[in-house]
Amino acid sequence: MTIETLSTSRAYGGVQGVYRHQSTATGTPMTFSVFVPEHEPGERLPVVWYLSGLTCTHANVTDKGEYRGPCARHRLIFVAPDTSPRGEGVADDPSWDMGQGAGFYVDATQAPWMPHFRMRSYVEDELPALVAEHFPVDMARQAITGHSMGGHGALTVALRHPDRFRSCTAFAPIVAPGQVPWGEKALGGYLGPDRAAWRAHDAVALIEDGARLPDLLVDQGDADGFLAEQLRPELLAAACEAAGIPLTLRMQPGYDHSYNFISTFMADHIAWAAKRLG
Amino acid sequence: MTIETLSTSRAYGGVQGVYRHQSTATGTPMTFSVFVPEHEPGERLPVVWYLSGLTCTHANVTDKGEYRGPCARHRLIFVAPDTSPRGEGVADDPSWDMGQGAGFYVDATQAPWMPHFRMRSYVEDELPALVAEHFPVDMARQAITGHSMGGHGALTVALRHPDRFRSCTAFAPIVAPGQVPWGEKALGGYLGPDRAAWRAHDAVALIEDGARLPDLLVDQGDADGFLAEQLRPELLAAACEAAGIPLTLRMQPGYDHSYNFISTFMADHIAWAAKRLG
Repeated sequence: MTIETLSTSRAYGGVQGVYRHQSTATGTPMTFSVFVPEHEPGERLPVVWYLSGLTCTHANVTDKGEYRGPCARHRLIFVAPDTSPRGEGVADDPSWDMGQGAGFYVDATQAPWMPHFRMRSYVEDELPALVAEHFPVDMARQAITGHSMGGHGALTVALRHPDRFRSCTAFAPIVAPGQVPWGEKALGGYLGPDRAAWRAHDAVALIEDGARLPDLLVDQGDADGFLAEQLRPELLAAACEAAGIPLTLRMQPGYDHSYNFISTFMADHIAWAAKRLG
Repeated sequence: MTIETLSTSRAYGGVQGVYRHQSTATGTPMTFSVFVPEHEPGERLPVVWYLSGLTCTHANVTDKGEYRGPCARHRLIFVAPDTSPRGEGVADDPSWDMGQGAGFYVDATQAPWMPHFRMRSYVEDELPALVAEHFPVDMARQAITGHSMGGHGALTVALRHPDRFRSCTAFAPIVAPGQVPWGEKALGGYLGPDRAAWRAHDAVALIEDGARLPDLLVDQGDADGFLAEQLRPELLAAACEAAGIPLTLRMQPGYDHSYNFISTFMADHIAWAAKRLG
């Protein structure tokens, strides 16, 4: 698998790069960013995957996430994929919560989404293999995090692969897409009306169905305009309590849904991951 | 003087705001951002002014500067103005190094720039008065910094007002606009062909003409594509040496001209300012 380097730039002693490749999962070019801290020749470093939220590309967190300093200090590689396939010939929706920029990290089974919207395969299989081939990552030491729709992605990917990730955290995640408007629209559109098919893509449902994680950190701003209707962290708290999963849910007073919130707590999430990655 | 709040968002325990006002200096609406850390009611905090480079607005450093963490730790207010007047009826140039986005922090004396391009008056007089009125700043404790064209702005404003600023630093500044293509074009365009009029807007010339600062920190990437032709820190080093100004010039290996460079060293510049602001 080949990748094209779009840009590299020194940052915090390491290299922030942006790369593009032709994805077999989505059938489109896909762009992603990777930060690699300073390291010894031949050395392999743990990796943190960051899944972004609705409307975002790799660029939002790359520009505004403030992860490079903490990742340099803890010597972690940070990978940020796009949130969907894009371009001409790729289905879209006029709204910002469906279609391009809103892949929800599922493999669509419904028209018109099916041929390209395969973000589950992309972030679970194709991109990890590509990153393992081209970057000095230690794939035995992986962590995952994400924001909003990407928090949903991080939680569901980790719950489906408990042996792959030593750490899972999220910023203002959608925790129960099957019970909130964003999720009902997206999962209904991509996966069809049979709600049983949604459960593998719903963190609360996965936990109810037996999936487990060793622990979990979630930060949530209490001034987040999406909190009550779309995010509903209380549903995750209840599921974790019933399942005996230690959840650290921090309600952050006055914080909204933006990168001002994410960047404020990014260092905490990187430190949480670093501790578990050894 | 009234200001309009465009947005506020909690960050690092403080508030990141973006504001707009009708400028009497430029005769246009001007947008700027202010970060105010957590503080006691009635308390006034020191302020760091950040002047941006060519093509930038307030938004570039606000999104990518990574100053909020260091400013929250040191309890400093951070203000980022725009780089020029903008809008219909404001003169412009098809190139990116002249006109809108490229005000060079001078008061233009030449057509077609004269009526609106008054960025010296704006950043030296109008905006400080506005900020002093609307934000909890201690105007007895001010620092200034900037990048590229904004590094030129920071150096020249500080050299003209040594009693106002306790700290001056710069990221990859234009140090001698009278001797480099960007500066010759801009100062020639805004101030006319008489080079004597340029000297008050040229850090090296100001130092040659007797201006002094207690000390100075400059970071410069050695992989910066503008280094040899436009930035030429060796001219500043020679002028400082001749004048006895202690200059800490750090050539940073492998760093370019981007915000990856700026954000990497932002905490050092904030700490440098904090130490001098008491």
